[in-house]
Amino acid sequence: MCSAQSVSYANTNPLMLLSGCGAVMRDEKGRAYLDTRNNVAHVGHAHPAVARAVATQVHTLNTNTRYLHPNVCALARKLVETMPAGSELRETGVVFFVNSGSEANDLALRLCAAYTKRRGVVVVDGAYHGHTKSVAGISPYKYAYLGGKPDAVEAVPTPDVYRGSASAESARRDTAAAARKLREDGRGVSAFFVESGMSVAGVVMAPEGWMRAAFETVRGAGGLCVADEVQTAMGRTGRWWYAFEAHGVFPDLVTLGKPLGNGMPLAAVVVVGRCADEFAKGPEYFNTFGGNPVCCAAGLSVFDVLKAERLRNNATAVGNHLVRRLRAIGEDASLDRVTVGDVRGIGLFLGADLVTDRTTKTPATRYASLLCSALVQRHNILTSLDGPGDNVIVIKPPMCFSIRDADRFLDALHTELRRLNVLPPPILGKNNNVATRTPT
Amino acid sequence: MCSAQSVSYANTNPLMLLSGCGAVMRDEKGRAYLDTRNNVAHVGHAHPAVARAVATQVHTLNTNTRYLHPNVCALARKLVETMPAGSELRETGVVFFVNSGSEANDLALRLCAAYTKRRGVVVVDGAYHGHTKSVAGISPYKYAYLGGKPDAVEAVPTPDVYRGSASAESARRDTAAAARKLREDGRGVSAFFVESGMSVAGVVMAPEGWMRAAFETVRGAGGLCVADEVQTAMGRTGRWWYAFEAHGVFPDLVTLGKPLGNGMPLAAVVVVGRCADEFAKGPEYFNTFGGNPVCCAAGLSVFDVLKAERLRNNATAVGNHLVRRLRAIGEDASLDRVTVGDVRGIGLFLGADLVTDRTTKTPATRYASLLCSALVQRHNILTSLDGPGDNVIVIKPPMCFSIRDADRFLDALHTELRRLNVLPPPILGKNNNVATRTPT
Repeated sequence: MCSAQSVSYANTNPLMLLSGCGAVMRDEKGRAYLDTRNNVAHVGHAHPAVARAVATQVHTLNTNTRYLHPNVCALARKLVETMPAGSELRETGVVFFVNSGSEANDLALRLCAAYTKRRGVVVVDGAYHGHTKSVAGISPYKYAYLGGKPDAVEAVPTPDVYRGSASAESARRDTAAAARKLREDGRGVSAFFVESGMSVAGVVMAPEGWMRAAFETVRGAGGLCVADEVQTAMGRTGRWWYAFEAHGVFPDLVTLGKPLGNGMPLAAVVVVGRCADEFAKGPEYFNTFGGNPVCCAAGLSVFDVLKAERLRNNATAVGNHLVRRLRAIGEDASLDRVTVGDVRGIGLFLGADLVTDRTTKTPATRYASLLCSALVQRHNILTSLDGPGDNVIVIKPPMCFSIRDADRFLDALHTELRRLNVLPPPILGKNNNVATRTPT
Repeated sequence: MCSAQSVSYANTNPLMLLSGCGAVMRDEKGRAYLDTRNNVAHVGHAHPAVARAVATQVHTLNTNTRYLHPNVCALARKLVETMPAGSELRETGVVFFVNSGSEANDLALRLCAAYTKRRGVVVVDGAYHGHTKSVAGISPYKYAYLGGKPDAVEAVPTPDVYRGSASAESARRDTAAAARKLREDGRGVSAFFVESGMSVAGVVMAPEGWMRAAFETVRGAGGLCVADEVQTAMGRTGRWWYAFEAHGVFPDLVTLGKPLGNGMPLAAVVVVGRCADEFAKGPEYFNTFGGNPVCCAAGLSVFDVLKAERLRNNATAVGNHLVRRLRAIGEDASLDRVTVGDVRGIGLFLGADLVTDRTTKTPATRYASLLCSALVQRHNILTSLDGPGDNVIVIKPPMCFSIRDADRFLDALHTELRRLNVLPPPILGKNNNVATRTPT
């Protein structure tokens, strides 16, 4: 194969998937797989309304973005109108359309630097903000492998309340220390980048007050606050913007990507007017494909479908059901070798943290890998693992994922967990880690 | 308007364009505009075959790239198969699909650094490689405005043989000096980035031998050579890969973007196997949308249409016609105030350098702006300007641009040039620069 891809189940049986519908994908033999992980097919695989919108627009016009087009303006308006009333983003927000979450965070870096005239960035340990060279450099999840932490970056600890501790107080102390270091070394504080819900860190949700304290401290040091909602946007958590609505903070910039175009490459930065104005004084920013009429047609249709099918409500209802049943599985006393130690997240952005011991909370890395392998091989269920221990099942399916889908997944999960608790313990090398860990 | 865009004719009359066909776009009142500049709608606006391919695929499956899909492999194969027989890229080439030319060059930077373990980059003055923070940093066209040249970058002079001089010898001398500086300062030479045809620099084509000498010198210093074919790829010059086929060099990496998906966000890096292998030893590179089945369907269809409609031949024939007639206009002795001083490029990648004086070669910046304004207002012809003097009309239309289209454009151009030569000289402020200069 001459194309370089990072494929799931690569060591056992990579799948060739040729069609999709709702939360189901089918392979070349017509076998159907239940999809618990594809946060890109946001309103469902090959959703007919989105597909029609794309098909109509691509037959009419696609072009670079040198001209006005109603789709661009309409989609920008939709994004700004979902911001909370009274917030600066709602009142003055400007939208930059780009092609990926990585491009969105990369542009956000440039916007913050243009506004603050500084370059220091405070980030959160375990965070992932994308694959361009610059945003890999503000991603502790990646930069350890890429020659280490860049000099203008300081990281604060992951707000993990399951294995660690985090509070408003720790946020204030840690961000203040990071900001002080950046100032002392002459780099100054340009921005605080934070995922509203941390995905590759293993679905880590900051506790009450943590985000607000961090925002206040960074702003006190002159930095802007960037909420990376690439994983959580477009209603996945049941809310429009998790940062605002759950953490009660008001970011200066919000970035989003994956779900916006239901798989079409489309992403955006929404930024307060004062920052956009300062950026506009610099050289022209031009993004050839960003905001093209075809991808924007997809984005508009995603908004329509979310509303028509009440998918934010569905995310809340099915999410609550999943949390309840996952917790119940975690309480099954017969699972004494590997079990669900913690359930985190909200809506259809959930993590089930597999441990070998409820007290020590030891990540069940090898079991998790076996479990995902069994789920695809015996039950045709697609899952993914994340977290530093590769032991958190991340549940972020298409938003039409139903209670029935959830039950099918949960029944299979419980069955396989039971089986793993009676089988001889796994003896596995690293290569048997068959499910993929990483941002999807 | 709450979306931030960099729009053409923004100071006079920005256009809202709603449909397209071939080399024509139509506005909201149905007015047709001849498009001489849209290198994104590569095989023609809303080409029905490409539109059908996209529509079919988007109704079937779009997903992130965690799974195998025949479109990805087929498109990768097509790209590699167009490389010259015997070249290392043809024999061992690996394709990474991404979403934009910027992402392609950004990844190329990372690939080179992973292979060479060094970070110094040699670039060409006036070059533009994209908008992410890192590739803006290797783009002299941009970095002057962004806080200056980054410390790991050295630029060699633009190989401009119209206003300056350039030769194999100058290339050898200049790249050797740049490489020496990078080595002496401890950064080492990771890569040489060069556009096979320089677009924003004003359609500058390096002379015979220049590219080969530069490649040899940079390789001698241990660097890899990256041919940025974002502007010139997919047959625009009449050849598949201008770097190989016109300059006679064999790049280690080729990047391409704009034309590949006929407007769909799709771009690629083709890289020699030894470099891809080294990169694979590092952390996973995952690009959510890169190589998605819908955009790849567009890419495959672009290849089919190029072949079926013999568009590379068309580019050569119409390009030759344009060059001949532009040169003839330049020889019209009545044009003594503003004229075509130089015609550069090949196929449908051409530049007409407007000057106020054939001897001094003074850029006719203000006239050029007036000319483009007259062309859109009186003739419904879309044009664009580039070059450091904003005086080069860059001609890079859809590949179906016909002899008749060319004649319509050339007649209008000649008419308006004649008019500008008899009207009182323009008194214009900077803001009257109505046509847009920049990468499109």
